[in-house]
Amino acid sequence: MLIREAVADDWSRIWPFWHRIVAAADTYTWDPDTSEEAARALWMNPAKRVYVAEDPSGAVVGSAYLTPNYGGPAAHVANAGFMVDPGQGGRGIGRALAEHVLAEARAHGFSAMVFNAVVETNPAVGLWTSLGFTVLGTVPEAYDHPRHGRVGLHIMYKSLT
Amino acid sequence: MLIREAVADDWSRIWPFWHRIVAAADTYTWDPDTSEEAARALWMNPAKRVYVAEDPSGAVVGSAYLTPNYGGPAAHVANAGFMVDPGQGGRGIGRALAEHVLAEARAHGFSAMVFNAVVETNPAVGLWTSLGFTVLGTVPEAYDHPRHGRVGLHIMYKSLT
Repeated sequence: MLIREAVADDWSRIWPFWHRIVAAADTYTWDPDTSEEAARALWMNPAKRVYVAEDPSGAVVGSAYLTPNYGGPAAHVANAGFMVDPGQGGRGIGRALAEHVLAEARAHGFSAMVFNAVVETNPAVGLWTSLGFTVLGTVPEAYDHPRHGRVGLHIMYKSLT
Repeated sequence: MLIREAVADDWSRIWPFWHRIVAAADTYTWDPDTSEEAARALWMNPAKRVYVAEDPSGAVVGSAYLTPNYGGPAAHVANAGFMVDPGQGGRGIGRALAEHVLAEARAHGFSAMVFNAVVETNPAVGLWTSLGFTVLGTVPEAYDHPRHGRVGLHIMYKSLT
């Protein structure tokens, strides 16, 4: 598994799983009908550092971004987002991306990382917890899940110092 | 006190206190050096509903916005932001704006409101609490306060149903 900074040409290999994940509308707080153009503007945003995971065949199997979660006097707190091709689950890609992004966040001087809206039924909650994130609080009934109804959104936190 | 929807021409009367509040860097997570152009793009954003409070002389003494806090399956949760001219404190302008925006949020179908980053030393915490908001959690040491050092950022919540 190679994890490297994304280049513009990677987008066409991110978009198929990006679209599949957001259209499923069970983990992300984005419009499931987000167009490819809007998705690219969101994910490949020049204000974010973007990474991809490549398997040995050269296929892009996951992507992540790192960005400040706030501005001004709170810009030392990072935010990140992660997507793994749903056809490539169970291979540790999410964990490898997360470990890489946490190391990058430290290297770039962030002192903590916050996830603002983790759907409480998302299996990734277990991954974040195993990496040292804690649930600071949960916005009740904030997410209309297609199978579970209105579920909470966790705010999750990890100190990087 | 008249509270009404803002029009484009109001911006020149919002900017003086907007700038003073953000430059003080003790309540907002925005760059204290935010330019007027960037501030206008942030506050008078077409995706937001923007309101102003006018005193009987016609002066704009406060402003607020209302917007979805998330997209897609969580778009029924609102976010809002409030600014009152620091020279006009103690007159109930913040409370009047908040009551108006909460009523607007209900009228537009939002089922809850979340504030993502309330500096824990901000006296407005008492106002939000008196209006029924609760602290869901606090991001520790997230905000470099000019007098109090690193203080927490509260995530605050109120159900609108």
